[in-house]
Amino acid sequence: MYTLYYSPGTASMVVHLALLEIGADYRLEYVDFDKDAQHSAEYLKLNPGGKVPTLVIDGRPVYESGALLTVLAERHPAAKLIPPPGNPARDAWLQWMVFLSNALMSSYRLWFYPHELGNAEHPPALRAAVQRKIESVWDQLEAHLSAHGPYLLGADFSGVDLMLIMLMRWSRNMPRPATEWPALKRLADLVRARPSWKRLCELEGLSDW
Amino acid sequence: MYTLYYSPGTASMVVHLALLEIGADYRLEYVDFDKDAQHSAEYLKLNPGGKVPTLVIDGRPVYESGALLTVLAERHPAAKLIPPPGNPARDAWLQWMVFLSNALMSSYRLWFYPHELGNAEHPPALRAAVQRKIESVWDQLEAHLSAHGPYLLGADFSGVDLMLIMLMRWSRNMPRPATEWPALKRLADLVRARPSWKRLCELEGLSDW
Ligand SMILES: N[C@@H](CCC(=O)N[C@@H](CS)C(=O)NCC(=O)O)C(=O)O
Ligand SMILES: N[C@@H](CCC(=O)N[C@@H](CS)C(=O)NCC(=O)O)C(=O)O
Repeated sequence: MYTLYYSPGTASMVVHLALLEIGADYRLEYVDFDKDAQHSAEYLKLNPGGKVPTLVIDGRPVYESGALLTVLAERHPAAKLIPPPGNPARDAWLQWMVFLSNALMSSYRLWFYPHELGNAEHPPALRAAVQRKIESVWDQLEAHLSAHGPYLLGADFSGVDLMLIMLMRWSRNMPRPATEWPALKRLADLVRARPSWKRLCELEGLSDW
Repeated sequence: MYTLYYSPGTASMVVHLALLEIGADYRLEYVDFDKDAQHSAEYLKLNPGGKVPTLVIDGRPVYESGALLTVLAERHPAAKLIPPPGNPARDAWLQWMVFLSNALMSSYRLWFYPHELGNAEHPPALRAAVQRKIESVWDQLEAHLSAHGPYLLGADFSGVDLMLIMLMRWSRNMPRPATEWPALKRLADLVRARPSWKRLCELEGLSDW
């Protein structure tokens, strides 16, 4: 049994999408950022970094959205979210999962949490540099997808596309949203047409983009 | 057959350590940072981000050190670098692998590559903020290891400890090296006593720390 500690539209989205794709039974626990619930003593016991998501799996709390995507994908092979061991596409899947977390999600953290770099708001040059870091990832992904898409693994949808769509959505109010890159836009349109996306938007109360 | 594109002491270390732990056959290809070889047209075909490591697996280039550690660990189960599917410790392993990449390695990138945030050298306040980001990870890991160590998974060594030792080593010239946290120091001493560490230092021409 799974319990997902989540906040709408945040890094918990990819885990929620994976649960919906799998058709697993799960319970949602809302973590109220307005009340700073992510830093309550009780929540910090589950997630000492004070972040969402946390997934409680048979009583054990686990964090890091990319890891949780991998765990769920492995535990539910019928959903085909990750290629099985022995398939070379699995190596590419792991590459993209770690790359999205390491290069892209961490840069969003800089973009959305300027106080972690010491300012209430970034000075313009720093803000531009963080924007460049994020856009350079879109460039790299665009080159890959336009040659080898439409999905990250090629012809077939997989769980890493769920991670990418979440990260793309976070750019929608940025100076240059990810959907301005055509192969990224095509991937987003494909993933947003899936029932899991529509259901997620209903359940989390999100606009379709 | 494996070919590792590496530069001594960099993010390729964890992949090199994993190859040594496994006892796999591999070939090393030196990427000469002094000549900016990581940005040569030829290398960018293997690794469009222009970074090391890249591991070529049966002709296919794969990148991201955390992903490569996972791939090698899965392909060589006898080395016991990752708990097998179905073991709850596997979830924790994946959590630490992604966490180290997302929260720690990405902050090192800011520390060592100030130009990516727009300056030849960080202004002091920004430098202090990046240092705090890195040290907050040592705090989080120390709390975990002092309660549940000596290794990240508890009583038993695993591949994520190789990732941690590499990241700890990178702090050795920082204002407060990771070895000042006692449970981290204990883990480092244990991992540095392994034959793979000694052999790596010889092969890459590194000081023992
Ligand atoms: N690397 C983490 C990132 C988690 C993260 O930064 N979550 C944000 C929301 S997107 C959060 O919890 N923010 C609240 C806070 O930091 O106070 C993961 O992928 O799970
Ligand atoms: N997230 C990547 C990081 C790779 C990385 O930043 N490597 C550095 C060395 S530690 C590099 O190649 N630097 C050369 C450069 O960026 O020009 C990984 O884990 O593989």
